[in-house]
Amino acid sequence: MKKKRALGLGIDTGGTYTKIVVVSAQGRALHEAQVPTYPELGPRKFVERVSAALRSMDLSLFRSIRGIGLGLAGDVDSEHGSLRFTPNLRSFGGFAFRKAFEAALGLPVKVENDANMAVWGGYVVELKRRCGNVLGITMGTGIGGGLILEGRIYHGSTGSAGEIGHCCVEPEGELCHCGLRGCLEAYAGSYGIVRTARKLMAERRSLMARWCPDPHLLEPKIVAEAACARDWAARETWRVTGYYLGLGIANAVYLLNPEEILIVGGVSRAGRLILDPVASVLRAQRFKTPFKRARVRIARTPNLGAVGAGLLGLE
Amino acid sequence: MKKKRALGLGIDTGGTYTKIVVVSAQGRALHEAQVPTYPELGPRKFVERVSAALRSMDLSLFRSIRGIGLGLAGDVDSEHGSLRFTPNLRSFGGFAFRKAFEAALGLPVKVENDANMAVWGGYVVELKRRCGNVLGITMGTGIGGGLILEGRIYHGSTGSAGEIGHCCVEPEGELCHCGLRGCLEAYAGSYGIVRTARKLMAERRSLMARWCPDPHLLEPKIVAEAACARDWAARETWRVTGYYLGLGIANAVYLLNPEEILIVGGVSRAGRLILDPVASVLRAQRFKTPFKRARVRIARTPNLGAVGAGLLGLE
Repeated sequence: MKKKRALGLGIDTGGTYTKIVVVSAQGRALHEAQVPTYPELGPRKFVERVSAALRSMDLSLFRSIRGIGLGLAGDVDSEHGSLRFTPNLRSFGGFAFRKAFEAALGLPVKVENDANMAVWGGYVVELKRRCGNVLGITMGTGIGGGLILEGRIYHGSTGSAGEIGHCCVEPEGELCHCGLRGCLEAYAGSYGIVRTARKLMAERRSLMARWCPDPHLLEPKIVAEAACARDWAARETWRVTGYYLGLGIANAVYLLNPEEILIVGGVSRAGRLILDPVASVLRAQRFKTPFKRARVRIARTPNLGAVGAGLLGLE
Repeated sequence: MKKKRALGLGIDTGGTYTKIVVVSAQGRALHEAQVPTYPELGPRKFVERVSAALRSMDLSLFRSIRGIGLGLAGDVDSEHGSLRFTPNLRSFGGFAFRKAFEAALGLPVKVENDANMAVWGGYVVELKRRCGNVLGITMGTGIGGGLILEGRIYHGSTGSAGEIGHCCVEPEGELCHCGLRGCLEAYAGSYGIVRTARKLMAERRSLMARWCPDPHLLEPKIVAEAACARDWAARETWRVTGYYLGLGIANAVYLLNPEEILIVGGVSRAGRLILDPVASVLRAQRFKTPFKRARVRIARTPNLGAVGAGLLGLE
């Protein structure tokens, strides 16, 4: 008799869309779906909608699912499986997601912050669990993060560990969405990158102004394309972004001494444009030991948040 | 029959003196001694000198010792029990201390960085192990640190975790002993504090100039006394020091989300002078959850490095 495979179901809940992935123990995606999150309809309707989407799945696949992982964008109480606070899913706050999904689907559910899920996915799929200590950085509008220490997700005392986005990299620097100045996110979050680019565009002629005449429509993707076309302002934007990202990473390496720093998310498509200035900040450090084994890489797997959730569900 | 007590022997090796303490399981010091380190005579002579000092100890006390902890100021390979690199004990580099002490004393030896030992001492004696996650900061000439995560010393990938002193808090800021600019140590290490004080003394009349006419002899102790006497330059020095220490601590709280931040060392005698500006930086953070349970306190136990080493030897 063929040995029955064990699969994990990952649900990655964003402010707009929720991604659903069925993964093998190696992290291969066997089924993918997407449903709108509609946070305004409340958490109960959300659980119903996701459950309905699962019922439309191939039954033999569904029967192999052994566990579910749910990633939520916000401050998650993973012990109780609920969401404490979130700016993007306000109506979901306080809801006991674990209980609701376990009742609806009859399978064990693990709930985590979405950045933790993405880092877990990267740890298993890209790093093949070959190291113990990983700092994961999720780059999008905001900058999130997660820590794998000694092979397990590290939560800290209130479940907030890994929030590298709000580490200060420039006292009295640029304004961050959190309200404070000088956070890493204020430079390396997509709004920070675009702000740097706009300031530089105002100084001198740039390709970006031609490609995107309305500076309000500027996106990191356009900045990356202009930098590939050797536009000075775009290149300088990535240098500044990478410099501050490098400072944030260097500080984290002194504290956590990880083997791997894994960058996840859309902005990370900038590739060498952002990795080169990061590397030059790390190379400049004089105290070398903590950096000896610290490697920075960009994750390549799509939907790592959902994949990681599925893998954690399987654990 | 009276139950035989189990004691630990702690050895805290500094650049000038080595402190030896015999401790109970609760961290009470039952015997204390001090020998000169004389690093220039090499590690073998050092092991001999410490062993001789122990032979002069009350025999009944010595017989109760179950384990030894050795703290070394530098980059320690605790797995192999040796010292990899150190600016203050150069001749000790590469020496296999664990083997040498185990051979000389016939007891199991644990070797750790001295900051890790001090933080372990504070964790057991001052915090009574009542929490899982602690960031310890040792303040002296340099700024060191150690991490207790989930109740155990966290070493990281090369044994360098917790090095908060070289986290950047002011890009392009003051020069640090490591050669880089803007490290926390450059502001909160004793040389950084004195540098800030000297700069302020040059601006306007200060009590410190009267008490210490040769600015090269200025010490943090004098800055603390002058601040207690309401000297403006001394008070401003502590505000600056505490501000940067606060930035360093806030960054570490975002990453590590600890319950306790324990400050150890001579400079920490400044008490509220340094804690007040730290608290005001932490209060100013807008993202509140990671800070909810984070308490900053100054350790009061003397010789925490040796006490912690003895306690770890007993583990």
